[in-house]
Amino acid sequence: MELKTVNELIGIVGEDYVITNPSQKISYMYDQVEMAMRPEANENSIVVKPKNTDEISKIMKYANEHNIVVVVRGGGTGLCGACTPVRESIILSTERLNKIIEIDEDNMVAVLEAGVTLYDLLEELENHEGVGFPVHPGDEGAQMGGMAVTNAGGARAVKHGVMRKHIQGMEVVLPSGEIMELGGKLIKNNAGYNLMQLIIGSEGTLAVVTKIILKIYPKDKYSATIIAPFESFDDASRAVLEILKSGVTPLAVEYQDKHLFVDTAKMLGTQWQAEKGNADLMIIISEKTEAALYETCSLINDICEKNNSYETLFAGKKSEQDELLLIRSQHYELIKDIIGHSFDTAVAVADVPAYLKELKSLAEEYNTITNITAHIADGNIHSDIVLVDGKMPPYAEELKEKIFKTCFKYNGTITGEHGIGKLRINDLKLQKSSTELDLMRGIKKLFDPNNILNPGTVIEV
Amino acid sequence: MELKTVNELIGIVGEDYVITNPSQKISYMYDQVEMAMRPEANENSIVVKPKNTDEISKIMKYANEHNIVVVVRGGGTGLCGACTPVRESIILSTERLNKIIEIDEDNMVAVLEAGVTLYDLLEELENHEGVGFPVHPGDEGAQMGGMAVTNAGGARAVKHGVMRKHIQGMEVVLPSGEIMELGGKLIKNNAGYNLMQLIIGSEGTLAVVTKIILKIYPKDKYSATIIAPFESFDDASRAVLEILKSGVTPLAVEYQDKHLFVDTAKMLGTQWQAEKGNADLMIIISEKTEAALYETCSLINDICEKNNSYETLFAGKKSEQDELLLIRSQHYELIKDIIGHSFDTAVAVADVPAYLKELKSLAEEYNTITNITAHIADGNIHSDIVLVDGKMPPYAEELKEKIFKTCFKYNGTITGEHGIGKLRINDLKLQKSSTELDLMRGIKKLFDPNNILNPGTVIEV
Repeated sequence: MELKTVNELIGIVGEDYVITNPSQKISYMYDQVEMAMRPEANENSIVVKPKNTDEISKIMKYANEHNIVVVVRGGGTGLCGACTPVRESIILSTERLNKIIEIDEDNMVAVLEAGVTLYDLLEELENHEGVGFPVHPGDEGAQMGGMAVTNAGGARAVKHGVMRKHIQGMEVVLPSGEIMELGGKLIKNNAGYNLMQLIIGSEGTLAVVTKIILKIYPKDKYSATIIAPFESFDDASRAVLEILKSGVTPLAVEYQDKHLFVDTAKMLGTQWQAEKGNADLMIIISEKTEAALYETCSLINDICEKNNSYETLFAGKKSEQDELLLIRSQHYELIKDIIGHSFDTAVAVADVPAYLKELKSLAEEYNTITNITAHIADGNIHSDIVLVDGKMPPYAEELKEKIFKTCFKYNGTITGEHGIGKLRINDLKLQKSSTELDLMRGIKKLFDPNNILNPGTVIEV
Repeated sequence: MELKTVNELIGIVGEDYVITNPSQKISYMYDQVEMAMRPEANENSIVVKPKNTDEISKIMKYANEHNIVVVVRGGGTGLCGACTPVRESIILSTERLNKIIEIDEDNMVAVLEAGVTLYDLLEELENHEGVGFPVHPGDEGAQMGGMAVTNAGGARAVKHGVMRKHIQGMEVVLPSGEIMELGGKLIKNNAGYNLMQLIIGSEGTLAVVTKIILKIYPKDKYSATIIAPFESFDDASRAVLEILKSGVTPLAVEYQDKHLFVDTAKMLGTQWQAEKGNADLMIIISEKTEAALYETCSLINDICEKNNSYETLFAGKKSEQDELLLIRSQHYELIKDIIGHSFDTAVAVADVPAYLKELKSLAEEYNTITNITAHIADGNIHSDIVLVDGKMPPYAEELKEKIFKTCFKYNGTITGEHGIGKLRINDLKLQKSSTELDLMRGIKKLFDPNNILNPGTVIEV
């Protein structure tokens, strides 16, 4: 980065908050994308840490006038390389915008600076009895701004939906440096085109989110986790559809290939309780009253039994539930070193069995494994192409193409929750019509005519 | 309209479906905006009734090439003049796109042509046990396409939110005639900018919606209506906030000025049961089980009592509830002839008491009445400027300006659910920054470069 730019940035945020030292910069270069597939960061990028909206506005104005690329960085917990600076960039870290401005229990909203982490928010809400926030993408280091622009999802989307449903207002800085307020504490607002909904999911390419107004909710007090093993995936899947139609909505319904549950438990020094079966569901329930929890468990039990589950194992104590959740979430540690390419496809819930069957046959065709982990009740399937002898196998591109083709056969999407970022920018062209891509390009140009904000992400102009 | 255009349209849709006869056209010219404030239709407009997407595509292509204005008309139940053709227009009625393509109970979605009315949908869902659709803007003649582009709300938004939350996919025709598919039966989809969310709420100015994929839900089987009269509005409002925070979510919480309840009941030949008090809440509850209904009623009763309600009157029988709902909805018949200007402002729920107090003082200042009808649990306040001797009073514009100013003081919006349309296009400039208006203008130009689709609605280019 030119010295002139560095000095200008020092002038805006102060010397302590411009990082040019390589060893200090390195942790700002990548997100959580696996090594084998991650885009390469440009080492000439520098990190700047503004403390507020006004400083961000000044940085954007300068960058825009001088055609300098800016990449916004939140918690760096993303999985599509959106925040990796592939060109020489100002990495604009929002970590100092970490103020919880207000927990407004009358309106049941939280007003948060963009750099507040999910961990910070949940910790603060502990001080507000009975109040919670439900979206949980897995890593609590995720920042609110990042969760908003990536439209974060996670396992609990079954009951609570994704971030889009919970954001009521935003403050953003446009590439020009202009500050814009969108929405507010209002529940209903039909005044004009909804630019906020457009910015949600735009992965830091249209505006820098500096503040968000987030809906908070009365917390469910009671929870349970059910493990239900089935002989066939079709039975398990039919049970899921019947549960969704029954009127009770689980917090989450997770499916993993059996070996992932069994081997992760072993790795953690414990044992996976469900010995029988080939297709295990982990169903997490949360309810407001004990009676409702009991009723929901009983109904789910009946549906699982009717669909030939071997048994239904209930965990009611927090420690037991935590152990199960740990086995679910730690499978990644088991496999992360062998992941060549990881997928985030999604199809309609009822198409999951047929889609998974085809993924399995594709794996057989190439004599490999799939590592399927699915948020099965919302149709979001994570699967992998695994490395062979530590290397990307020669058939990787071909298999990837076949997996996408299969996904499109079911009108699926290449990304249910992780986003396009830099990782899937070429793949997006396989899914979208040129008409839609052209409109996206037009929107990008409208917000960011000089293409300085996170270029090469989501859409190329 | 030029004969050449008429003949061209006849060539596309057939003679029977191009209406040029004034007496047949008239019912396509206006929506439900009150006479005193409705924009005037251009009488040279003609009506065309295509039967499918392909015909719509051809109409748009022709209109775009010849710079002819097209105004899409759904059920005509809108309240902002969006579908009134103020310039010489092709009124494109979607009434023949009335096919319920699929009720997919496995994925819990309905696939609907844009002209399917809410009435048709609800009737069809009667054949699917236990399945329903919750959004209800009041008039069941509303068509799905119209409900989508206006982001329809209604009283039940408290529990179920607005249309935006329930639309998963769309087929649209762009002004160019190009057909675009957005979303699908997918629950999670993070592939690219969300153009569908932008089209929702765009009031027929960006694209013609031809098909929608709508989430459907397990229906709540049990319902009750509670009338709770309070002496002061502050107490009533405090009770509402406590209910919302308690963890139970009513289907709807309606407030009306007492005289509207009392006089409407009288008009209907019955009597308003709550004699005491000046601020009556009508709280509608729906739950999946009888036990849950009982528990919710009991909790609401406690909260109302704690906040000094005189009593809580419960209606459990369908006939009793229907009567109450009729009194709520028929107030419009009582006042419609005296409405000069009707408002649709919204503020944050906790600001409702202070905001209403100011509306009341403004009415006093002008020696008039407000006719307040509020979806109080989502902050959406309908109020009126009433006619004096059948005429718009001379202070109308001044009072309107003061009402908006008050609304903005509370960071409110000029339209919570009815939309901008042609009615509020100038008022929108009071609420939005020029930055935001410029972006809206840019989006309009991007989708509709020749400005042929419903110009003069939402935003002028």
